[in-house]
Amino acid sequence: MSAVDQAWMARALQLARKGLYSTHPNPRVGCVLVKDGQVVGEGWHLRAGEPHAEVHALRQAGDKARGTTAYVTLEPCSHFGRTPPCADALVAAGVSRVVAAMQDPNPQVAGRGLRRLAEAGIEVHAGVLEAEAREINSGFIKRMETGLPLLRVKLAMSLDGRTAMASGESQWITGPAARRAVQRLRARSSVVLSGADTVLLDGARLTVRADELGLDAEQTALAAQRQPLRVLVDGRLRVPLDAPFYQAGAALVASCAAAEGFAAEGRELLVLPGSDGHVDLARLLAELGARGANEVLVEAGPRLAGAFARLGLVDEYQIFMAPKLLGSQARPLLELPLERMAEARELKISDIRAVGDDWLVIARPL
Amino acid sequence: MSAVDQAWMARALQLARKGLYSTHPNPRVGCVLVKDGQVVGEGWHLRAGEPHAEVHALRQAGDKARGTTAYVTLEPCSHFGRTPPCADALVAAGVSRVVAAMQDPNPQVAGRGLRRLAEAGIEVHAGVLEAEAREINSGFIKRMETGLPLLRVKLAMSLDGRTAMASGESQWITGPAARRAVQRLRARSSVVLSGADTVLLDGARLTVRADELGLDAEQTALAAQRQPLRVLVDGRLRVPLDAPFYQAGAALVASCAAAEGFAAEGRELLVLPGSDGHVDLARLLAELGARGANEVLVEAGPRLAGAFARLGLVDEYQIFMAPKLLGSQARPLLELPLERMAEARELKISDIRAVGDDWLVIARPL
Repeated sequence: MSAVDQAWMARALQLARKGLYSTHPNPRVGCVLVKDGQVVGEGWHLRAGEPHAEVHALRQAGDKARGTTAYVTLEPCSHFGRTPPCADALVAAGVSRVVAAMQDPNPQVAGRGLRRLAEAGIEVHAGVLEAEAREINSGFIKRMETGLPLLRVKLAMSLDGRTAMASGESQWITGPAARRAVQRLRARSSVVLSGADTVLLDGARLTVRADELGLDAEQTALAAQRQPLRVLVDGRLRVPLDAPFYQAGAALVASCAAAEGFAAEGRELLVLPGSDGHVDLARLLAELGARGANEVLVEAGPRLAGAFARLGLVDEYQIFMAPKLLGSQARPLLELPLERMAEARELKISDIRAVGDDWLVIARPL
Repeated sequence: MSAVDQAWMARALQLARKGLYSTHPNPRVGCVLVKDGQVVGEGWHLRAGEPHAEVHALRQAGDKARGTTAYVTLEPCSHFGRTPPCADALVAAGVSRVVAAMQDPNPQVAGRGLRRLAEAGIEVHAGVLEAEAREINSGFIKRMETGLPLLRVKLAMSLDGRTAMASGESQWITGPAARRAVQRLRARSSVVLSGADTVLLDGARLTVRADELGLDAEQTALAAQRQPLRVLVDGRLRVPLDAPFYQAGAALVASCAAAEGFAAEGRELLVLPGSDGHVDLARLLAELGARGANEVLVEAGPRLAGAFARLGLVDEYQIFMAPKLLGSQARPLLELPLERMAEARELKISDIRAVGDDWLVIARPL
């Protein structure tokens, strides 16, 4: 792998990221066609049902595609889905070399696209900037490999680790920049999931509001075309149907028991009773994975977020930390009762950055 | 003020910082003598009773001091202390221009040194890189301006804001790099202050251990020559005299009542009863300021650290944050009972940086 290959792959990854808000349930993919150090075509996957990145790039290149090197952030597909196989299209266009950042994450098909290319006499490489490519599609990859979506828990806390006063008072712990960042987290997710406490207490709607994303016009338009599926965990169906949450659009509700007359246009009930009297969260995640959810964003109170943590279901925490102290009576970050230091949950902090006056901590369980 | 002045002042500040661990109760000061773009002498204040930075620089320059510009991080003194006035020395050496980063912080003498220089026909400037200069001596400046030392509270917490398990189990929340950083915080302080809880529970000695500082040989040697004064807040004198704390050297103890036979060689008792049945912490700080303490480091549990916070006596928090969750039953960062969001204590986070696997958050009350 050469520095030149890395540089062009970095460009392809940049293109892939343009699909951050729109490709669900598909992965974000970018492609650059290069000949003699010049780009002759580039493209990225916009949304499901539309052409893959390679096809956009080949169309832009036209006859100039012959003899190029194609840089793709994911192994070209070899199967007929909603679109024909990209591997065939690359062969037909006369591309002479294909560099992929990573193989197809589906273990059943990984390597087939590259093999088809190699069999057609094309020089193939895989694994250039693979870590970066995996990062962009970590949810898609997890679903392909395990059937489960990536679970990302967003929390807002004070510097002393508190999310609300003992009374429940909690609005506006963090500032406007953090709220925009949360809007972007919602917009990139397949599912935004919350619990009855949050929806009742805060009147939360959990929608993406295009004017609050803080994105440029192109990205805003793409994000605005797709609302993530809103999922409410409400074991006893405590949230009334006239709550703002239900007024804001379609929703999937997970409860412990069926309810007469609940299901309606845009309102689906999933009955998933767990053995502990609460909704079976692991089964809920499997169901969301089966429906094509790559990234699930949990925006919930300490009780539901803590339940995901206790069950070991959390892949990533995004914690917005406000520069203030809420004091020792305030509510905890997570309901997570531990007795001994040896039970402490170890994390790896991958990033801490300023977001307005607040700070965002991204951490993953070890 | 020119870019050239700023560059030379940056060098003088670098020299001043060499005194970080040794100048107590004096300020850290650096001086550079420059002529025709060349350094002809430089110096920094090592420790109280020894020559000031200007004298070191003048000695190094010898006859070459004539016609130079002197960059000093603090206004040259105009009074006879343990050493003669530096302003006179600069005049006598024939320095033609003096640039000071800041005036003397003592309001009673501020400007006198510069005035003496100006009256002798020397061109004077003040205020070059003043913010940086104030930062180095923030404790000294606070004491000069108010009589009180700067109070810095060191805390070690989990990402969810907890300092120990409910049982009290707390050792090794943070890693070795954080422990070295704490050693350096101790070494730069005039006073290290703790409470009976910490000293009893952890067997804390609160000494500076030269081999754990992680500094170069020169700085280690300077730090090793001075132990900060160890102060124990123990209202009811619960800590037994055979505790490791008392075995580790001289100590000052603040209590609510006198105790027969307590005072001894290296063990001083300050009786400072407060109206609430606890030690009067504000009076204790005033007493420490009167004794020349510039920077007081509080290394205490949530109760004593929380008491300083409740009284509004904290100037700076240095919080070492470990990438782990200790859970919702664990002990709080500070005993700080607040009812409503409007009572939340607002802070300004001035820095967050990685320290080994942990993160250090530096925050100051607004």
